[in-house]
Amino acid sequence: MAIKPVSMKGHRVVLLDQRLLPASETYLKFNDGPAVAKAIKDMVVRGAPAIGIAAAMGLAVHSSLCPDNKEDFLKELHKVADILVASRPTAVNLKWAVDRMLQVAENWPSDYTAESMRKRLYREAEAILDEDIAMNRAIGTHGGVLIPDGATVMTHCNAGALATGGFGTALGVIRGAREAGRSIKVISCETRPYLQGARLTVWELVHDGFDTTLITDNAAGHLMANGVIDAIVVGADRIAANGDTANKIGTYTHAVLAKRHNIPFYVAAPSSTLDLSIEDGSKIPIEQRMSEEVTHYGSHRIAADGVKVINPSFDVTPWQLITAIITEKGVHRPDDDGYHFLENPDTSTKTAS
Amino acid sequence: MAIKPVSMKGHRVVLLDQRLLPASETYLKFNDGPAVAKAIKDMVVRGAPAIGIAAAMGLAVHSSLCPDNKEDFLKELHKVADILVASRPTAVNLKWAVDRMLQVAENWPSDYTAESMRKRLYREAEAILDEDIAMNRAIGTHGGVLIPDGATVMTHCNAGALATGGFGTALGVIRGAREAGRSIKVISCETRPYLQGARLTVWELVHDGFDTTLITDNAAGHLMANGVIDAIVVGADRIAANGDTANKIGTYTHAVLAKRHNIPFYVAAPSSTLDLSIEDGSKIPIEQRMSEEVTHYGSHRIAADGVKVINPSFDVTPWQLITAIITEKGVHRPDDDGYHFLENPDTSTKTAS
Repeated sequence: MAIKPVSMKGHRVVLLDQRLLPASETYLKFNDGPAVAKAIKDMVVRGAPAIGIAAAMGLAVHSSLCPDNKEDFLKELHKVADILVASRPTAVNLKWAVDRMLQVAENWPSDYTAESMRKRLYREAEAILDEDIAMNRAIGTHGGVLIPDGATVMTHCNAGALATGGFGTALGVIRGAREAGRSIKVISCETRPYLQGARLTVWELVHDGFDTTLITDNAAGHLMANGVIDAIVVGADRIAANGDTANKIGTYTHAVLAKRHNIPFYVAAPSSTLDLSIEDGSKIPIEQRMSEEVTHYGSHRIAADGVKVINPSFDVTPWQLITAIITEKGVHRPDDDGYHFLENPDTSTKTAS
Repeated sequence: MAIKPVSMKGHRVVLLDQRLLPASETYLKFNDGPAVAKAIKDMVVRGAPAIGIAAAMGLAVHSSLCPDNKEDFLKELHKVADILVASRPTAVNLKWAVDRMLQVAENWPSDYTAESMRKRLYREAEAILDEDIAMNRAIGTHGGVLIPDGATVMTHCNAGALATGGFGTALGVIRGAREAGRSIKVISCETRPYLQGARLTVWELVHDGFDTTLITDNAAGHLMANGVIDAIVVGADRIAANGDTANKIGTYTHAVLAKRHNIPFYVAAPSSTLDLSIEDGSKIPIEQRMSEEVTHYGSHRIAADGVKVINPSFDVTPWQLITAIITEKGVHRPDDDGYHFLENPDTSTKTAS
């Protein structure tokens, strides 16, 4: 059974409530754009590609609530688009998906009624989902062969089926490696504070029958120093023009350790994650999340009253630490001055040693 | 009110149950050595110096249960000493303290009755506690002046009053900096999986009125890259002859990041933490702890069934990454080929810039 974190049914967006995994597999339904924005903010759905798809679907279902008059329809759609884009600041796929939906509406064909446009927006949102899954499969094909047979691969956070339309980006590479016949083991970092690794990645990997080991984020350095880890693959929330990559907090640390221990460090993401308007990572906004993610576990307070908290949700890994960036188009490798995404990536499927 | 994690009252060892902090301040009493060994294993008391003191006190109270016949007395004491030493493998202070107690008993004066030896062992255990606090204060004096005025200092795990007889080693340096008139802020890493930073270090620092900020271990790299952290100070569980240092899992990672960002990285520990019989860190045994520390929070399961766990409690930081090692004797700095603890350390109190 394939994992489906985001879909549409009738005039509703259906989201697998990822906050309850792995204890419970519960699906929530949303009738309008602002409700989807709140679900994104509250982490019902998370993962850069998945929140892009959810936002696109949020606009599609919201179109049913837009007035029939074209001008008012577009005004309402733009208003809701702004709310969706503001729900989380770091991932660029969210804005990418919303802009794509808005462009469809702005290019309103002269023979279209409001109802035809609503159907058109539904089809566009479905297309974004289908394309995402196809892109993930292509990422898996390009990236899977970079993983040597017998390797132990570490990943951080969840860049899996749950973070995308399905199949996953980083976990797409891992699934791709298996499809390419490689026998591999996977180490999942728990990924504090939100534990996406422990809760989501482990659930996905065990579900798919991978040999899966859970570690604390703290243990990664020790295991790299002891030769246990052969490759690292992570997803991305935004990639600047030079290859600097924003991803879940802790990614930068793993990349620094990987460099020290000569372990290949791969980023896997659809090209919608590229933000070529941003020269380097210093321009990527970093979301700060609420302190309770660190001071509490559920309703149980861990830390004494009176303490302050800094809780950045992402960090930026400089391109120099990234061995290759895998998109649906192929494998990008850096020159001496960074990545060049406008040049053709490597699409050969040569086997890593 | 000074924090007293380990003490003796009558014929009992009194331990502050650190598993319940910060929610509850509960003291448990133990009548014999094996019970103290179990409390060490179960983490009622933790921290290398504190478990050494607890073990010494465990032997002292256990002497009441030893037969009056000298030979049987010593046999029973050795049996319990072995149980205590086996309770946790990495920290060397435990063995150091137990050996010191055994030596007192072995050097049995000819005019001593069993009862005089029992009193003597009590005094020795009290002396180990008193000396530990005095050593921590000396560490604070030597190390405090290394911290510049206005600095933000990061620490990992709990090397505070709770980890020692009182005052602390790493937190001793932080307290020493304040006593030296430096205005400083402290960042405590939460320290997964056991959350000693979130639960214990934050409690101690807020208790003492420090400006304290809690972060996930994952956030340390991001904050170092953004210039937020001016110095790092941690404790140690065992230091090899060349300066390689075993400390709480995650320490190595912080040290690698500190090197990259030119942030001074200090280790603070009493000289009983030095194990000159071990040439380098590769010979230090690393304790593996139970998987439930990672898969569960309390009784709540976080990760899906079927996952494996690797849960090392410590890692080894190579001496090259350590700016200085602060003991009660002064500030040790490495030569090109490592630390030389038999040479005199720096005891000048020159002010860091």
